[in-house]
Amino acid sequence: MDFTAPKGMRDFLPAEMQKRQWAMGRIGGVYQKFGFLPMETPALETVEVLEKKCGEEIRGQLFRVDDGRLALRFDLTVPLARVSSSSMFKKPFKRYCIAPVWRREEPQKGRLREFYQADADIIGCPSVRAEAELIACASEAIQELGFPAPVVRLNDRRIISAIASRLISGKEGEVLRIFDKREKIGDAACVEMLEGVGVKKEAAKKLLSELTGSSGNESRLKLAEIYSKEAAQDLKEILDLLPEYSKAIKVELDFSLVRGLDYYTGPIFELSLGKEMGSVAGGGRYDGLLSMYGQGDSAVGISLGIERLLALMKEREFEKQGVFVANAKEGFYGSALSVAAAFRKGGISALTDLNCRNLKKQVENAAGSCEWIAIVGEREMKAAKVTLRNLKTGKEELLSIEDAARKIMG
Amino acid sequence: MDFTAPKGMRDFLPAEMQKRQWAMGRIGGVYQKFGFLPMETPALETVEVLEKKCGEEIRGQLFRVDDGRLALRFDLTVPLARVSSSSMFKKPFKRYCIAPVWRREEPQKGRLREFYQADADIIGCPSVRAEAELIACASEAIQELGFPAPVVRLNDRRIISAIASRLISGKEGEVLRIFDKREKIGDAACVEMLEGVGVKKEAAKKLLSELTGSSGNESRLKLAEIYSKEAAQDLKEILDLLPEYSKAIKVELDFSLVRGLDYYTGPIFELSLGKEMGSVAGGGRYDGLLSMYGQGDSAVGISLGIERLLALMKEREFEKQGVFVANAKEGFYGSALSVAAAFRKGGISALTDLNCRNLKKQVENAAGSCEWIAIVGEREMKAAKVTLRNLKTGKEELLSIEDAARKIMG
Repeated sequence: MDFTAPKGMRDFLPAEMQKRQWAMGRIGGVYQKFGFLPMETPALETVEVLEKKCGEEIRGQLFRVDDGRLALRFDLTVPLARVSSSSMFKKPFKRYCIAPVWRREEPQKGRLREFYQADADIIGCPSVRAEAELIACASEAIQELGFPAPVVRLNDRRIISAIASRLISGKEGEVLRIFDKREKIGDAACVEMLEGVGVKKEAAKKLLSELTGSSGNESRLKLAEIYSKEAAQDLKEILDLLPEYSKAIKVELDFSLVRGLDYYTGPIFELSLGKEMGSVAGGGRYDGLLSMYGQGDSAVGISLGIERLLALMKEREFEKQGVFVANAKEGFYGSALSVAAAFRKGGISALTDLNCRNLKKQVENAAGSCEWIAIVGEREMKAAKVTLRNLKTGKEELLSIEDAARKIMG
Repeated sequence: MDFTAPKGMRDFLPAEMQKRQWAMGRIGGVYQKFGFLPMETPALETVEVLEKKCGEEIRGQLFRVDDGRLALRFDLTVPLARVSSSSMFKKPFKRYCIAPVWRREEPQKGRLREFYQADADIIGCPSVRAEAELIACASEAIQELGFPAPVVRLNDRRIISAIASRLISGKEGEVLRIFDKREKIGDAACVEMLEGVGVKKEAAKKLLSELTGSSGNESRLKLAEIYSKEAAQDLKEILDLLPEYSKAIKVELDFSLVRGLDYYTGPIFELSLGKEMGSVAGGGRYDGLLSMYGQGDSAVGISLGIERLLALMKEREFEKQGVFVANAKEGFYGSALSVAAAFRKGGISALTDLNCRNLKKQVENAAGSCEWIAIVGEREMKAAKVTLRNLKTGKEELLSIEDAARKIMG
């Protein structure tokens, strides 16, 4: 019989789990500092609710529950949209959520069937101040995990849609789909595919060089104005606001950014850690989505690729647990428990020997999990003290419990 | 169209979610102080793995996933048993897990289809030191949430099994099932049911008065010895160890405690907050279970009824978010962002006005969510200061950002 986790899913043993808890706690802390509040919804949603957002591909990836009416959520935006329509929030409403989602895909490297997302969204804010806030917040969360400041690629759906419709009318969707593949397939293949849907070769070539020309944000803003005055104005405002959050944020207007065939209606953005590490967060404005769930409203969101960030994070050396309180003789176990209780009262993690081993074995056992050992023996009990030994340096001292606690706390 | 959560499941809006996060963080903190490490497994398990433990009733409550091979976990013990068989841990292995489980029951008051459990388990410890540790740890976790020290009811499966088999042999299971109902149905009905399976009325009456006689732990230990010397010895050891953890722990031997028809093999226990509030945690030794998953080992666990505890917890007044940085004129928004960034750097949660409102509206908005407001206007910008107002007292001062941060931090 097979006792591994189901296909495409993982068990997180303590060392990995400690790292995950640390990272999620950090990210949550940054979201909270920006005033985002936590919200949690069930793992299951009705298929009726899920299907409002999911495309054909994801529909096939739903983990449906026995009677077929329910399925595991495939993202965290659908639950947010549903709740936004069934509850009253003071606007703008800022929520974050770090939680698992499920997709019944063929598992492959870096793609699993259960994985966490870390989303922040702002509901009820028509101003692009919301976009700036989300980009700044995600950028800080990424740095909080020890990464350098990410580079922000910024575009607007109104611009690429205008570009596509000027290029060839009636086939905007197909053009966007080709744009979206550009980075993977290269410019030459992109031109070829554009020709395939009826775009003239010269026009396609000219456009691509125009889109990806490295001419700096100012001249790109001018180009943006040709396609959408409103979008250009919004992008300019985001560019102006971001340095106020942090000078470290680097933004590049990039009109070749598409971000899938998703539901975005305005500015879109991706945060990247350079060519090798790629995109680690992305999002945009999706003003149309909420109206599909009853109550329409402005909405902007960002999703942190937390699994990707965790995979890129160096192994963290987690502090070993505090102190192992050893009993020199079996009869002293009760006293060891009292000493451990005193340490815990002082906020220190304390272990005792559950398995009734001799002192030598206890010390060996402690060395694997603790930085300190406190020995309770005859001499110590008479003096109401413990022998505190640092397991790294081997140095030991006879100390009162209070002094030992102070030493352990550093 | 219905935009509520699926039947028997809940959305946790921010106020409730903050309370939940607070409580789970506290409980996790206590578990960690006792040296328990976090471990997480997928929401889905194969039905084959789940069926090894679940009885007939729970089998019918599984949320099965489309192809029927997988189902959502119904508890946190099955995943632990599975992982214990597929991984090598240094023993004793102490893990905790605070996570949701799913049961397709008919929803009723206090019983939902998705709910959290908070478990701690010790694998590979044959000594009842493990039982004492779990009881002490759970007791502290409950107090950490603001409850008084719970009363511990303690029994041993070997004792009630011996009682049942002495009463009538061959029908121990039925006798246990009747014992388990005693508290709900009362002694008279219990005697009647025992008669129904063939126990003589006099014997049943005598036994019940013997079991529930309020004669104190010492005389109960003597009674225990009649039925199982080993169990009596183990119970005595637990009773001796618990006061070393904390004098606040009150333990009562209670031979009428059955804890369902579960898989327990040794000591069992329940932690209760008094008659009205009832049991809030329970567990016991289940040495037999792990061998069903490949590698047999000693195992003791406790499960905190975290949903019950959350329901009993008073509404917590959560600290309002730190400071709202208002911009007196629209043109000052960028400066407000810089001020907010400085506050965040100091660890303070800071909000700004995303919705481009006038100062009066901003102040009104801030009052609902923050304790402080920092106003950035002409005068303030010239002096590189902010006007910091306490929204409760109405007092305000012109301060440098550093001084304002110090004031907010208290």
